[in-house]
Amino acid sequence: MSTLREDGPAALEWAARYLERVGDFPVLAQVAPGEIRASLPARAPEEPEPFSDVLRDLEEVLLPGITHWQHPRFFAYFPSNTSEAGILAELLAATINSVGFLWRTAPAATELEAVVLDWVAELIGLPAGWHGHIEDAASTAIMAAIIAARETTGRDLVVCSEQTHSATEKAARMVGMRLRRVPCDAAFRMDVCSLGDLSGAAAIVATVGTTASTSVDPVGEIAEACKRAGAWLHVDAAYAGAAMVCPEHRWAFAGVERADSLVVNAHKWMLTPMDCSLLWTRRPAEFRRAFSVVPEFLRTPDAEDALSLSEYGPALGRRFRALKLWAVLRCHGRSGLQALIRRGIALAAEFERWVAEEPGFELCAPRPFSVVCFRLEGADERSRRLLERVNAGGELFLSHAVLNGRYVMRMAIGQAHTTEEDVRHAWEVLRREAERV
Amino acid sequence: MSTLREDGPAALEWAARYLERVGDFPVLAQVAPGEIRASLPARAPEEPEPFSDVLRDLEEVLLPGITHWQHPRFFAYFPSNTSEAGILAELLAATINSVGFLWRTAPAATELEAVVLDWVAELIGLPAGWHGHIEDAASTAIMAAIIAARETTGRDLVVCSEQTHSATEKAARMVGMRLRRVPCDAAFRMDVCSLGDLSGAAAIVATVGTTASTSVDPVGEIAEACKRAGAWLHVDAAYAGAAMVCPEHRWAFAGVERADSLVVNAHKWMLTPMDCSLLWTRRPAEFRRAFSVVPEFLRTPDAEDALSLSEYGPALGRRFRALKLWAVLRCHGRSGLQALIRRGIALAAEFERWVAEEPGFELCAPRPFSVVCFRLEGADERSRRLLERVNAGGELFLSHAVLNGRYVMRMAIGQAHTTEEDVRHAWEVLRREAERV
Repeated sequence: MSTLREDGPAALEWAARYLERVGDFPVLAQVAPGEIRASLPARAPEEPEPFSDVLRDLEEVLLPGITHWQHPRFFAYFPSNTSEAGILAELLAATINSVGFLWRTAPAATELEAVVLDWVAELIGLPAGWHGHIEDAASTAIMAAIIAARETTGRDLVVCSEQTHSATEKAARMVGMRLRRVPCDAAFRMDVCSLGDLSGAAAIVATVGTTASTSVDPVGEIAEACKRAGAWLHVDAAYAGAAMVCPEHRWAFAGVERADSLVVNAHKWMLTPMDCSLLWTRRPAEFRRAFSVVPEFLRTPDAEDALSLSEYGPALGRRFRALKLWAVLRCHGRSGLQALIRRGIALAAEFERWVAEEPGFELCAPRPFSVVCFRLEGADERSRRLLERVNAGGELFLSHAVLNGRYVMRMAIGQAHTTEEDVRHAWEVLRREAERV
Repeated sequence: MSTLREDGPAALEWAARYLERVGDFPVLAQVAPGEIRASLPARAPEEPEPFSDVLRDLEEVLLPGITHWQHPRFFAYFPSNTSEAGILAELLAATINSVGFLWRTAPAATELEAVVLDWVAELIGLPAGWHGHIEDAASTAIMAAIIAARETTGRDLVVCSEQTHSATEKAARMVGMRLRRVPCDAAFRMDVCSLGDLSGAAAIVATVGTTASTSVDPVGEIAEACKRAGAWLHVDAAYAGAAMVCPEHRWAFAGVERADSLVVNAHKWMLTPMDCSLLWTRRPAEFRRAFSVVPEFLRTPDAEDALSLSEYGPALGRRFRALKLWAVLRCHGRSGLQALIRRGIALAAEFERWVAEEPGFELCAPRPFSVVCFRLEGADERSRRLLERVNAGGELFLSHAVLNGRYVMRMAIGQAHTTEEDVRHAWEVLRREAERV
């Protein structure tokens, strides 16, 4: 039987060593589908095995199948930072393992969650007084927002842009709402003139930092349209919201103060391990009306005075996620978060300059934050082959998008330990491989 | 700045000490709403603070606000076991911090998830070949199931019993489906004769181990009704599914082999820290049809051969939850899980005998597993006051339910470290306080 004292030091050592050597592994796992599965037994053991066997198999069997999101040359999708403070806090949260469906079942977790959401709200420049809680993923937050919108407006149309994350489409489908995608302008921002008839609109989903190019929708104008139409405004800032800890990037949040709900993922670019999606609303009463189902077994003597966060979102059981966010905010401080954002954006600006100056390469979108969209001149096939070659080599990992019908590569910077040397290395690999496609 | 090597040992020591002394704390936090919040600063710090300050404040500020789910005399709701293997695995998962929305972004996590779901399927006696994945909560799993049912049948009615968990009502409301609650028999099992006209039924939600009394719906008969009506059968075994690791309790799963989907929470009575809700289906193609939204940025060269679990449920971002379940299954084995279940059920049977023999107390429901429903004879108010007195004292924590219109107390046994002495102590407190109400 494992014990924290006997096996904990080895687990800690594995974790510390993992973070020290993560840059030495191929970024993208070099295994074929089914390969990991085939090397694992078909059945659970009958009798207990030592934890050291688990650690050994993590190293020997699973490690080759890990795509290393903490690798300093992981440039795909969006970053998913972890941090040592966040890791230790997850250990503590799993130890306490409280279930926060009522205030009384987890008073500290519930109140700490409200406090740290206030902290982040202040850090990113939101007005005082918004009601915040944690969801697992931005997908869930978007679903929650459009449900609240439907229950509030009595309408069933969700409006977003052609650049809005597919989570909105998926959420609308799940909850049985209609979806309208409106076109974007040349900079991939929602074209407000194309919103069309909003008389059936429950909600408009605006994005600050879209998935493909990180474009910023004109939130102020969209807020105006929502106001006229009586529609709910949800702002998806899952990635770029973190950048608002730096005042010089707050231009991107203009108009967000008029949103009805807003999501920022602390588990992307804010050093907090998965999962920790921050959902704020100016309209907590409407959220509560949409999500509060209080059966007999949840009625308690203190229910009237106390905040039960399960009444504000889809899930009933809630783990102690606030602990890791609290640890991260304290151990990094405003200055630490700002440094991470500024370093990522400066590196992206540098990479952007290199691409602009390189014959045969072209930039494909404005770069508001830390993602550079670029391609090889000529047929899409060349860029596609370049990306596949580069990813297969394991030195870096990039993902792609389609913008204006063209295949583009995305260089997304923001891992906690990415240095200028890593970005330069990536650029050298890209130039080297470009000559071979 | 925290480091795993510098601060990790102190975090481990706190966790180990917490589990050693958790039985010395009041089970239910003895704080008033707002008290924890008031003792925390209003803003995040500007500059980094040491992790040791976080640990100190966890001990001094938060601890009084923790309701101790790992306390051996936590008898409320259902158990929420953690375990040392599971805790260490969460540390490792937060370190790797992969995001498993595609197979390629987390091959090991994806394949391990499929493997451990097969392992648990075998442990609880499911037929081979079911498709399993992990959701955060049974609430999410139920929502996913009724969405799959709606998309498959083209109908919008969800049928459950008056004892079905409120998560079904909440899910139906969220996704815009209608709900019908049918009555139960004298043992709180769904009355199949009262199902009524099922021509509009998308799904029936049957429960093995209902929330109030842990009654077991007649799943075989309900499966027959589903077959006749062309409706989906979802089985909620969030709590009692764990008991199926013991063959002697498998009577309760009769008919489950005919279900379309099934949920068992590993984070209740299976030693796995929150959150880890296991969802199996016999109809993966229908799940995939309901949940697969593959936008351009998720199209990859290997997508055709590889399993991407985000296509089988609501969330896109998925953390490495399989790691903790794997660690728990290996470090406890079939025999360890069986011992936990058998100990819990034996203690409940003993407690039930004491209640039955005690003048002034009465049992209120059959006891299939480890939950005993009981009350004081006479007016509900007496039982309610007894429960409040007992919980306020901090020696134990029980929750309540309403059965047949009467207020009942629930003694839910199943914490990992609950001993006969703890149950005896609880009974002494209950008898002592009963004389005072």
